[in-house]
Amino acid sequence: MQYSYQQLAAQLAQEITSSHYPIGERLPSVRSLAALHHVSVSTAIRCYRHLEQVGLVEARAKSGIFVADWKMRRRDSGTANTALHADASARQRANREALQPVSYDKLRSLQHRMSELYLLTEQPLQWGLHLASAAPEWYPTADLSKIAQRLLRQHPEMLGEYPTGTGLPALKEQLVQWFSIFNMEVHPSELLVTNGSTEALSIALRAVAQAGDSVVVESPVYFGLLQVIENLGMRAIAIPCTEKDGMSMEALDYVLEHQSGIKAIVVMPNFQNPLGCHMPVKNKKRLLKLAEQWDLAVIEDDVFADVAPSTAFTERAQPLKSWDRHGRVIYCGSCSKSMAPAFKIGWVAGGRFHAKIAALKLSLSLVTPLVEQRVLSEFMQSGAMHGHLRKLRERLAATIPLATRAVQAYFPSGTQLISTAGGWWLWIALPEEVDTLVLLRRSVAQGLSFTPGAMFSNADKFAHFLRLNIARPWGRDMERALQLLGELTRQLLLETGDRGQISRPQN
Amino acid sequence: MQYSYQQLAAQLAQEITSSHYPIGERLPSVRSLAALHHVSVSTAIRCYRHLEQVGLVEARAKSGIFVADWKMRRRDSGTANTALHADASARQRANREALQPVSYDKLRSLQHRMSELYLLTEQPLQWGLHLASAAPEWYPTADLSKIAQRLLRQHPEMLGEYPTGTGLPALKEQLVQWFSIFNMEVHPSELLVTNGSTEALSIALRAVAQAGDSVVVESPVYFGLLQVIENLGMRAIAIPCTEKDGMSMEALDYVLEHQSGIKAIVVMPNFQNPLGCHMPVKNKKRLLKLAEQWDLAVIEDDVFADVAPSTAFTERAQPLKSWDRHGRVIYCGSCSKSMAPAFKIGWVAGGRFHAKIAALKLSLSLVTPLVEQRVLSEFMQSGAMHGHLRKLRERLAATIPLATRAVQAYFPSGTQLISTAGGWWLWIALPEEVDTLVLLRRSVAQGLSFTPGAMFSNADKFAHFLRLNIARPWGRDMERALQLLGELTRQLLLETGDRGQISRPQN
Repeated sequence: MQYSYQQLAAQLAQEITSSHYPIGERLPSVRSLAALHHVSVSTAIRCYRHLEQVGLVEARAKSGIFVADWKMRRRDSGTANTALHADASARQRANREALQPVSYDKLRSLQHRMSELYLLTEQPLQWGLHLASAAPEWYPTADLSKIAQRLLRQHPEMLGEYPTGTGLPALKEQLVQWFSIFNMEVHPSELLVTNGSTEALSIALRAVAQAGDSVVVESPVYFGLLQVIENLGMRAIAIPCTEKDGMSMEALDYVLEHQSGIKAIVVMPNFQNPLGCHMPVKNKKRLLKLAEQWDLAVIEDDVFADVAPSTAFTERAQPLKSWDRHGRVIYCGSCSKSMAPAFKIGWVAGGRFHAKIAALKLSLSLVTPLVEQRVLSEFMQSGAMHGHLRKLRERLAATIPLATRAVQAYFPSGTQLISTAGGWWLWIALPEEVDTLVLLRRSVAQGLSFTPGAMFSNADKFAHFLRLNIARPWGRDMERALQLLGELTRQLLLETGDRGQISRPQN
Repeated sequence: MQYSYQQLAAQLAQEITSSHYPIGERLPSVRSLAALHHVSVSTAIRCYRHLEQVGLVEARAKSGIFVADWKMRRRDSGTANTALHADASARQRANREALQPVSYDKLRSLQHRMSELYLLTEQPLQWGLHLASAAPEWYPTADLSKIAQRLLRQHPEMLGEYPTGTGLPALKEQLVQWFSIFNMEVHPSELLVTNGSTEALSIALRAVAQAGDSVVVESPVYFGLLQVIENLGMRAIAIPCTEKDGMSMEALDYVLEHQSGIKAIVVMPNFQNPLGCHMPVKNKKRLLKLAEQWDLAVIEDDVFADVAPSTAFTERAQPLKSWDRHGRVIYCGSCSKSMAPAFKIGWVAGGRFHAKIAALKLSLSLVTPLVEQRVLSEFMQSGAMHGHLRKLRERLAATIPLATRAVQAYFPSGTQLISTAGGWWLWIALPEEVDTLVLLRRSVAQGLSFTPGAMFSNADKFAHFLRLNIARPWGRDMERALQLLGELTRQLLLETGDRGQISRPQN
């Protein structure tokens, strides 16, 4: 992306170095330049300032702007020359970065997998299906917007107030009431409002473990968590999950008995990402018992539970935290999936770790802005949340049979649809020969993205898996997306032949 | 703070254990209970659920709610009893925490000084003068609110959008234009929008140093920075500052030559907190040279520069970053002091560290919400920022002579007003016998808070200093605040006598 002053500067630089404007010649005034090129005066100023810095023009007091003796300067080894090069190379570097393509191999890097995936979001994509978001129109944006407008009209002064505290008391009270519906008793004083659940997870990890420590995670696991753990200098020990029950208790038991240095278990007991499964209650209790036995903290990521499919008996699965009698579970939630994706409001109920978590939050980002918290708490208080969540779940569920049929129709045999994850995404195992990183590179070239399976592992697993976001109205457009992806998969299979291996991407 | 369901539960529990409701008796239905006590149905449900959890009532399917055999249960050593006690003690603990008074001695703790100071904000104070905020009515809240309302009305769908990316491009472009006014050339691609400047500082530190490394800071220094450094397991080496020029270049030179393990210099070259001073340009250049010589990163905290007093020649002091040719300076700024305190929007121009900083931001809090960024960018684009900043500076400046006179009038001799910090705060040295932690405890008891000097040091310096926020309309109220503080200081002096020492607070 080039900005107009840079474009203008580039053009003038070309005109100067090609001697269209010879050395010593007077250049148009700032105002003339602006008028000449249909840019603002400030753009013209910035253009000349830039050219001055790189040594092509010079401003002479009270007489104007002139072409500098740039040939002389370039011959010099003085500071102007160094600055010119430094500036030019910095600019080139920055431009390169702005245009940087996705490095598909970096999607495997523990330190970069999430950053790299987010680069995909900057690409022009017809079907950007690599995140886990739902269609914006499926959120109560009209209600939220109305509440926000009213608050802003009635209390504009709130925008001048410096936020303090661990969260808006009114929001905490709404959250506590919501928690009590699924039998999770949390006192507002052990609740902290965060900048989304990523901040909650990141703080929780820092509160219970240090660089060099190990933490247990699921496999497959939410890729973002792996990057957080890596960047904290911790080690993730991945415990296999089954599609039905989530984290294997047998494997967990074994690992805790045989490995030392483990400080915490990070788990999504309700609606695991990417498997979409819930842990059975008996496993939840067993996990808590193991945590007690080995004196571990449990970090519970519950962000999808509010929007997971409901069963006949319960609206909402009970989190581990609801059975936690020793303050051992750090519960992390957010409104990003359930109510207001744009708000980035999360929360953490820290149990015995609350004080440490609150101190870390202050070190990380001081406080969470209050305006969104006000809007959210009024929305929750209005009672509209229940109806909205029911509708959102229904919409998500309605997509499932259509997406399932599309996978059956368009994908080659040997493809397994492991989970439809409550209508949020598909978790698909393609035939083993298919490297989904290669498939991703090709499908992005056709305007379609997904999350490659390799990202969900820290041990090169799931290389032939993919996660595809489907939480949007299903129509011809999505049908075409699945068709395209199926075709690309077939092509890859044909290229590899029966036993062949596809070479990994080079960049 | 007790919630109505808890109050109701406490009352019912009392009635049950005093046998007003005997064991086995049927209790009012949920709806009757709600009507009887003028509470909502959901409160009544929560009350009964709570009593059920502690074993005082039991719900029998299709017949109602009955008083449980709680005497039997209490005699048992079973789970109900344990749960009852665990629940009760958790509740008691939580209640204690909610009412926890400020531990003045913890204001000295590197790990807790900021958390503890923030506890002051939860106290009922007539004069809460311990932060560095300005009066809400001094911000362009009407303009900001209007922009926000219009955006929400026209684009409610934005609330449903999952934010991605390193910041709103339109805001980045406004920031880059603003930077160019003070000769700081930053490309949007090396700019990252953060959740306020604390997040920017915290990420910057993690990008350039690890646990065990040392970083150079100023002395006195912003206390928040010390807690951030401590919580990252790093060591702060404090370099003395002068009231006139800020960080001493001679001391810095000496320290860099004699200490190893230093990775970065964190500095506020423009409007230092708490001294309010600017580094002279030659010192800024010398600092950059030293950083180059010793291969150090420089983290520049520039949050106050936009609202520092302007000189005759410049509207705005030039940051170190404007002379940085090697991408060595990580520049941190924010709108919290200058434009919109409630937004908590900050930014960091990371130079050569940008990629690492962007990856760390994803691990910390993914992205910064976009709604505030949209409002801020429109406000900046409207051109209203310049007028607002001029007015804000004038208002701040107008307070200075009044505050100065008040200090002269009310404080005992031996008091030195070191800085009036552009009208943001007073940095005062009281007679050496006065421990401002003791003074703070007493003044909070009278409804007045300030920041004790000890917080600005990691080496027990500035024990008789204090910082007092004055950025608000000056009137009788502020006059009384200064009078009160002066009196309390005199009392303390009288108690200690000429040579006496005041004992430190115990809690």
